[in-house]
Amino acid sequence: MTKQTDAIDFWFDFSSPYGYLMAEKIDALAARYGRSVRWRPFLLGAVYKQVGGQPLTSIPLKGPYSIRDLARSARFLGLRFSMPNPFPVSTVHAARAFYHLAQGDPALARRFALAIFRDYFVDGHDISALDKVVDVGASLGIDGEALGVAVGTDAVKALLKSACDEALGIGVFGSPYVVIDGEPFWGVDRLPQIERWLESGGF
Amino acid sequence: MTKQTDAIDFWFDFSSPYGYLMAEKIDALAARYGRSVRWRPFLLGAVYKQVGGQPLTSIPLKGPYSIRDLARSARFLGLRFSMPNPFPVSTVHAARAFYHLAQGDPALARRFALAIFRDYFVDGHDISALDKVVDVGASLGIDGEALGVAVGTDAVKALLKSACDEALGIGVFGSPYVVIDGEPFWGVDRLPQIERWLESGGF
Repeated sequence: MTKQTDAIDFWFDFSSPYGYLMAEKIDALAARYGRSVRWRPFLLGAVYKQVGGQPLTSIPLKGPYSIRDLARSARFLGLRFSMPNPFPVSTVHAARAFYHLAQGDPALARRFALAIFRDYFVDGHDISALDKVVDVGASLGIDGEALGVAVGTDAVKALLKSACDEALGIGVFGSPYVVIDGEPFWGVDRLPQIERWLESGGF
Repeated sequence: MTKQTDAIDFWFDFSSPYGYLMAEKIDALAARYGRSVRWRPFLLGAVYKQVGGQPLTSIPLKGPYSIRDLARSARFLGLRFSMPNPFPVSTVHAARAFYHLAQGDPALARRFALAIFRDYFVDGHDISALDKVVDVGASLGIDGEALGVAVGTDAVKALLKSACDEALGIGVFGSPYVVIDGEPFWGVDRLPQIERWLESGGF
């Protein structure tokens, strides 16, 4: 198998709480089975516009349940979590910044992604503004001014557009959405199935 | 704690494939922790009418995914499963028959419920018709003629109506929906959290 076939694709939106929980778990899980993970932020709103869907917490009955389930799922997984307000927020700047960083240094882009997630879902800061995204980058030693400029370029915008098109093309309808050997797993609650898949090479 | 507090409530619709998977697991899991389970069939359609929602498999993208996820989840849990056609079907007769049987013999009602589930999700038979429901009952030694009559009585209709009202009242929005000590768990994928809850008395 080639390196590319081996990689796991991890699709997520930075405003997805279950996506955040997956982000804290997927790399270590994959590494235990010698697999790498390609982080692929996309815009859930772009998908919802095409196929329907709405923010989880605004759905009748399921919304209040999900607030409770999220807190419990975080405790179950041993992760810190606090439901942010406002929710959801625009993640276009964060996602563009990610793809800009990933071009030069995928590991740095991943650290940036985790820092954005934690800033929103642990510290409760609104991560939608470009200034905020730049600040999170600067806290990791990234040149903030250069990052701010890059995020506004057509080239970087095109990277995110292309990722969103690819997500739609392969049928990604939610976040987190993990694809292993062509097999899709939606939701952080599929971690046990993901682990068995990695362990057994499919089941 | 009284016996009633101890009981786990298991809400489900007979046409719910994830409900079927839960039905095969919940009693044994609860028993390992000395807990009993009250099976509570309801009509998912009645809930969807109130709060929105639609059959999983007819949702764009999520529908095709769910077909694949169901087959994989059944393999993961070591259960036989075959997606039936037609799907979903009316389960009003099956649910009424259940409540009729449960009045006299809850254990028999549970065996009947599992037989209905397997007839639909393993053997692929349409379980919507009253004749079919009566046949499944008869296969368990139940007086089919009496069952057929009972299902049509106002008293038995009222039992199901009352269960559906109660489901709506406590916010049940999907199937399976398990309530333990007031804590709700939606979906068969919450089995690991249910187990930890039973093990630890809450977490």
